[in-house]
Amino acid sequence: MLTFTPPGGIEESILDRLNSGEVVIGDGGFVFALEKRGYVKAGPWTPEAAVEHPEAVRQLHREFLRAGSNVMQTFTFYASDDKLENRGNYVAEKISGRKVNEAACDIAREVAGEGDALVAGGVSQTPSYLSCKSESEVKTIFRKQLEVFTSKNVDFLIAEYFEHVEEAQWAVQVLKESGKPVAATLCIGPTGDLNGVSPGDCAVKLGKAGADIVGVNCHFDPMTCLKTVKLMKEGLEAAKMKVHLMIQPLAYHTPDCGHQGFIDLPEFPFALEPRVLSRWDVHKYAREAYNLGVRYIGGCCGFEPYHIRAIAEELAPERGFLPQASEKHGSWGSGLDMHTKPWVRARARKEYWEKLSPASGRPFCPSLSHPDSWGVTKGHADLLQQKEATSEEQLKQLFTKQKEKCCV
Amino acid sequence: MLTFTPPGGIEESILDRLNSGEVVIGDGGFVFALEKRGYVKAGPWTPEAAVEHPEAVRQLHREFLRAGSNVMQTFTFYASDDKLENRGNYVAEKISGRKVNEAACDIAREVAGEGDALVAGGVSQTPSYLSCKSESEVKTIFRKQLEVFTSKNVDFLIAEYFEHVEEAQWAVQVLKESGKPVAATLCIGPTGDLNGVSPGDCAVKLGKAGADIVGVNCHFDPMTCLKTVKLMKEGLEAAKMKVHLMIQPLAYHTPDCGHQGFIDLPEFPFALEPRVLSRWDVHKYAREAYNLGVRYIGGCCGFEPYHIRAIAEELAPERGFLPQASEKHGSWGSGLDMHTKPWVRARARKEYWEKLSPASGRPFCPSLSHPDSWGVTKGHADLLQQKEATSEEQLKQLFTKQKEKCCV
Amino acid sequence: MLTFTPPGGIEESILDRLNSGEVVIGDGGFVFALEKRGYVKAGPWTPEAAVEHPEAVRQLHREFLRAGSNVMQTFTFYASDDKLENRGNYVAEKISGRKVNEAACDIAREVAGEGDALVAGGVSQTPSYLSCKSESEVKTIFRKQLEVFTSKNVDFLIAEYFEHVEEAQWAVQVLKESGKPVAATLCIGPTGDLNGVSPGDCAVKLGKAGADIVGVNCHFDPMTCLKTVKLMKEGLEAAKMKVHLMIQPLAYHTPDCGHQGFIDLPEFPFALEPRVLSRWDVHKYAREAYNLGVRYIGGCCGFEPYHIRAIAEELAPERGFLPQASEKHGSWGSGLDMHTKPWVRARARKEYWEKLSPASGRPFCPSLSHPDSWGVTKGHADLLQQKEATSEEQLKQLFTKQKEKCCV
Amino acid sequence: MLTFTPPGGIEESILDRLNSGEVVIGDGGFVFALEKRGYVKAGPWTPEAAVEHPEAVRQLHREFLRAGSNVMQTFTFYASDDKLENRGNYVAEKISGRKVNEAACDIAREVAGEGDALVAGGVSQTPSYLSCKSESEVKTIFRKQLEVFTSKNVDFLIAEYFEHVEEAQWAVQVLKESGKPVAATLCIGPTGDLNGVSPGDCAVKLGKAGADIVGVNCHFDPMTCLKTVKLMKEGLEAAKMKVHLMIQPLAYHTPDCGHQGFIDLPEFPFALEPRVLSRWDVHKYAREAYNLGVRYIGGCCGFEPYHIRAIAEELAPERGFLPQASEKHGSWGSGLDMHTKPWVRARARKEYWEKLSPASGRPFCPSLSHPDSWGVTKGHADLLQQKEATSEEQLKQLFTKQKEKCCV
Repeated sequence: MLTFTPPGGIEESILDRLNSGEVVIGDGGFVFALEKRGYVKAGPWTPEAAVEHPEAVRQLHREFLRAGSNVMQTFTFYASDDKLENRGNYVAEKISGRKVNEAACDIAREVAGEGDALVAGGVSQTPSYLSCKSESEVKTIFRKQLEVFTSKNVDFLIAEYFEHVEEAQWAVQVLKESGKPVAATLCIGPTGDLNGVSPGDCAVKLGKAGADIVGVNCHFDPMTCLKTVKLMKEGLEAAKMKVHLMIQPLAYHTPDCGHQGFIDLPEFPFALEPRVLSRWDVHKYAREAYNLGVRYIGGCCGFEPYHIRAIAEELAPERGFLPQASEKHGSWGSGLDMHTKPWVRARARKEYWEKLSPASGRPFCPSLSHPDSWGVTKGHADLLQQKEATSEEQLKQLFTKQKEKCCV
Repeated sequence: MLTFTPPGGIEESILDRLNSGEVVIGDGGFVFALEKRGYVKAGPWTPEAAVEHPEAVRQLHREFLRAGSNVMQTFTFYASDDKLENRGNYVAEKISGRKVNEAACDIAREVAGEGDALVAGGVSQTPSYLSCKSESEVKTIFRKQLEVFTSKNVDFLIAEYFEHVEEAQWAVQVLKESGKPVAATLCIGPTGDLNGVSPGDCAVKLGKAGADIVGVNCHFDPMTCLKTVKLMKEGLEAAKMKVHLMIQPLAYHTPDCGHQGFIDLPEFPFALEPRVLSRWDVHKYAREAYNLGVRYIGGCCGFEPYHIRAIAEELAPERGFLPQASEKHGSWGSGLDMHTKPWVRARARKEYWEKLSPASGRPFCPSLSHPDSWGVTKGHADLLQQKEATSEEQLKQLFTKQKEKCCV
Repeated sequence: MLTFTPPGGIEESILDRLNSGEVVIGDGGFVFALEKRGYVKAGPWTPEAAVEHPEAVRQLHREFLRAGSNVMQTFTFYASDDKLENRGNYVAEKISGRKVNEAACDIAREVAGEGDALVAGGVSQTPSYLSCKSESEVKTIFRKQLEVFTSKNVDFLIAEYFEHVEEAQWAVQVLKESGKPVAATLCIGPTGDLNGVSPGDCAVKLGKAGADIVGVNCHFDPMTCLKTVKLMKEGLEAAKMKVHLMIQPLAYHTPDCGHQGFIDLPEFPFALEPRVLSRWDVHKYAREAYNLGVRYIGGCCGFEPYHIRAIAEELAPERGFLPQASEKHGSWGSGLDMHTKPWVRARARKEYWEKLSPASGRPFCPSLSHPDSWGVTKGHADLLQQKEATSEEQLKQLFTKQKEKCCV
Repeated sequence: MLTFTPPGGIEESILDRLNSGEVVIGDGGFVFALEKRGYVKAGPWTPEAAVEHPEAVRQLHREFLRAGSNVMQTFTFYASDDKLENRGNYVAEKISGRKVNEAACDIAREVAGEGDALVAGGVSQTPSYLSCKSESEVKTIFRKQLEVFTSKNVDFLIAEYFEHVEEAQWAVQVLKESGKPVAATLCIGPTGDLNGVSPGDCAVKLGKAGADIVGVNCHFDPMTCLKTVKLMKEGLEAAKMKVHLMIQPLAYHTPDCGHQGFIDLPEFPFALEPRVLSRWDVHKYAREAYNLGVRYIGGCCGFEPYHIRAIAEELAPERGFLPQASEKHGSWGSGLDMHTKPWVRARARKEYWEKLSPASGRPFCPSLSHPDSWGVTKGHADLLQQKEATSEEQLKQLFTKQKEKCCV
């Protein structure tokens, strides 16, 4: 019988854990979960929620902790100063980027103290890079967030969600200035980064930049991310580099994604529901990630606490314990033995859920979509970032462009 | 420009509001949301979370409030004493049903005070009725919960989730003893209750039992529930009865459900993801409910805060204001005008989302499922409730039965 | 071991056969099969092929005969004089309707002589009726075809494909003037004819008009047609009338059809491929039709020879013999035991095919369509028939109308 | 206005035509079409139909001719002596392989004379090769068919349906002994032949063996075959070889096929209906094949006469004429302008059909299937060919093996 208490204490560092072969479970997707809860705006993915509604951010951290997460990542996605100023946001003016980052650190540390978790400070890709600013300008942006993370003494650092490995290398180089362990994940698929650098080459570049852990996050479903990480692993092995592997995929099925991932899907971001992974999909993902040799296993957009719990339950035999949230859950549906209806009690077994192909309930909808592919990349006028909100005129031009390109 | 502040105060009663034609927005589904957050167990749907993790229940109430709910329904679903004792639960012994109900009332009242919401005490169908106990025994069960609701002075009462109108009538009769307004919803579809009483007849019976508001909740998707409520409305009109209408459907597409609703679907309760309503599905539902003359409009299992917000946004023109949570949301995707990618900014319009048929991302899965239909009803041995947990032997018999009946 | 020779001779009449409880297998769909083979034009469904390409019509008759059909129905669908003149056809002028009907009779009789089959002369609904001509005018139209059938001495007569029972009654009354047995089928679903007459009432009306056999053909899939015939059967039983039942459904899955059937589906008539029944679907249909008490079992549009063979194979135990075409087919895939690949040999069993849910191979397509519903019925200007081909201007108006009504 | 008469006569050879850049339209799939018509058995794909039912084979040839085919390929697929003896067939004994091949030649020549078509004698892969017989033994097999083709003076020769390029090379070498033009097609996908030889290398090998035309047939859908032919083209260009390209894909959508093609799909061969190409799918295919530079464009299994007609209609502007069968068809549905229902007349336009995503009408079925992959290749015991019919015991072993491997 597995217990609900992890064997080790919370003292070990992320690298001690990974070096000893321990599984580290990441957390899930803050911006999508908080958007659904009413605290975050899709588009700017407003990290100021940490200041405006700390109770909501805290509660989500706590749920991931109870579900088995060993890492409380600060809710600082898109919280660089240049991003906070972007497209009409009021944060830089009314709150300040520093305060947003500080509040996020404080919440993460508070909840980490409630269980066996480390705090990781996170940075992500910047509008400065996309708008072709210089290396030193971009690094300055990262350095401002790092100052907060250092002063708040986070346990390690994560550079995540980079579409261009070059920017990720810059981020890693800045984060390494702190002396703390650094993880770096790209939001790329098996075809590589937006400049066409292959996953294997990306992994090697990140390792050479100083990353202790490399991998992917966001943009693709677990099966696609596993392929990408496998390519990274092969690249690292070919270069004879020892770097830990990390994976934090979407909780959406995206077999139809092209090079740029789920953002191009017509359903992004407000009609992705039918693609959401079931907990059984997550079981399969966790097992395959483990078998591939990945030991930092988590999730990104779409991952809710119950998805993280499924990772922890799948890997409970290896880890020797279950997460707190499993007190209200039986692995593989076993908790249904208490259901009123006998035919639901009959579903209280692994074989049932493993074989089930869930119906969409949507007979007028297709299985796959054609992703948008406007063929624009870094440097194109349509991609330049601006401080002002998009104007009515700019929007109308986009609407017309869209109608020309597709049928909706 | 709509404001985020409702015009009226919080003084008016539920009947004053409905009598004046005002829209009252219900809340969403607690048991499914809290199961995903790690606090509730599927099957017994453990309401003791209100005692064990009040912060989680409070936060969900708050999210519904911010999303536009005007009713904080106490989290007392399946919190009758006979249910809490059922199938091996420890609550009656360790906590007491009274404490569970009291804690739920306190949390609901606390959050209601943060905005424009009333508190409703809720009762639901009992194992006593399903196990053929007498009218007086069943009524005693309801009366114990009512005592708490009275002492905590809730604003009104809801009898919900009844598969047999007879039990709902008994519940209404008990609740009316308090002198407070009473709403009653059945979890039935257009074919009527499990004894075959038609929706129209059910509505009339509930009205005659004293219900001020009648309708349906749970078990079926919005389109099916609208059909059922339409039949109820016609029944009431034929009987020349003035009773308000209420609707709280599932947030799952269930076009393939039979008589007993989504519990019979093979995906229940752990693989319903592909069926989840998008916010745009909810817009359509809210408009059709309003057009049908329903004024108490909410949700049940699967409804997350963003679904409730969609009701409030769709009906904002009629109500004159938007919910707090819309500060981080633009109606019909308009907030995407701040997205980095130009092709996502092009989705910032109603026409786009209204026409989109979202893909499931699951090309190996069907659109519809065959519901289980074991053909057992109240009184059948398989449906008798027991205090002990289901034994291994009982489960094995059910597994065998299931394999004989279907292919999974 | 079943033989390939039917036990009885070809002397018995259709009514002798049905009265003795024998199964009579109808034929399949000529217009759709010949359209795919290049001899018939969709729209007017040009029956002049019997004159222009007798070898093609003869070969299709022969294939149905070999597949097990006991009826060679003359290829005279839409071969009434008013229809042949319709919308720019040249037949009335260059060939004459009489010659078309005569050629069809000759071919049917020739092939019937090659096996155990009767010849049935067929009439179908007329543009005269749809254009509101009088009963006597419409009857004159039918009488002209009957004259040919009488002179060619067909074995019995079929009035088929009527959307309005009234016109079918007129047809039956005319056909009965010959003294030959008469079968009558409507192309209606469970909701009744286009005037809203229920299937039960339709059946009784046809029986009273003199039909010896009544049922449905075309417009709906087998499952829907079975429902309609069941309603007809109940109507006849309630009226204590003894009339034989007949069923000739589409070979297309049409779960999404409304009142008017598959013509309203967006895929009609040139993109119905994904809906085509497999032979295993036909097995199920044949068994259910037999169990319902229907003894005249055939097919309509979409039914190819192998579909008819599936009826004959399913009912071979009852009939005591297999059709000629089964010499090159093993029931339930047993012939695959000779396939090269071992995994295909493993499919040589009933259980395999019975359980298989065939994939569409079309992940960008939905399962169901919204049928067109322009809400026009008999008498509406858009439905008036004309002799001239539709003009460019008329077409443009229709295209515009269509774009307003739907998304394609 | 295009005529229905081709400009040139029938004198030109296949190479004259291709050298002049003319489009040559192949025919469709005989074995699947004749199986559905009741003359061919799935598995051995019994070519003896040419002797037993010449009228059926002749009629199908004629339909392809009328649809636009410029090649009447002798119905000699799987008509090598070793194949005819295989697994319990009676042909070698009762009819003789020579007679089967002669009859097929006579029919093809007769129908070719009715229009503008050449006669091609065809050979295909042999059980001798799969059972590891020697090169000289396998070549002897091909030579016996070639003797008939030579004596019947066919216009050119086709070696088709080879899974291993080595066997195809042997076939080409034998066929070239006749001095006639030789075409060679493999049934491979973009991943190459069953020994892993890439499409580019395969094309070069076939060219070096003497093939004047190379390409692919069968096993994959048009989109996949186009990819393979593109790779062949690139291989030939890299090797600076001038060889004509040919393509004859399936008329089934097979996006889910693996290395070995549609035979591994669970639906093969009796439940492929939902995958059948519409004529509009064929239009797209014909255009893309033409744009790729392929000039010998036809079909394989599943291609019915109307599919071939769609090739001829799509390329009519380039060719300057329409096929005979278009007299009963309007390109892109224009013939519907004569339909009774106005909403069907509104479908008489290219834009309508081009944009339509046809529904499957099968809401309980998935879009894709998992192909069987037993992992056996040439040389494995399960693949050895035998003269006797598969025994009951052998079948049972296969059924058990299948159940272990998948869920059906």
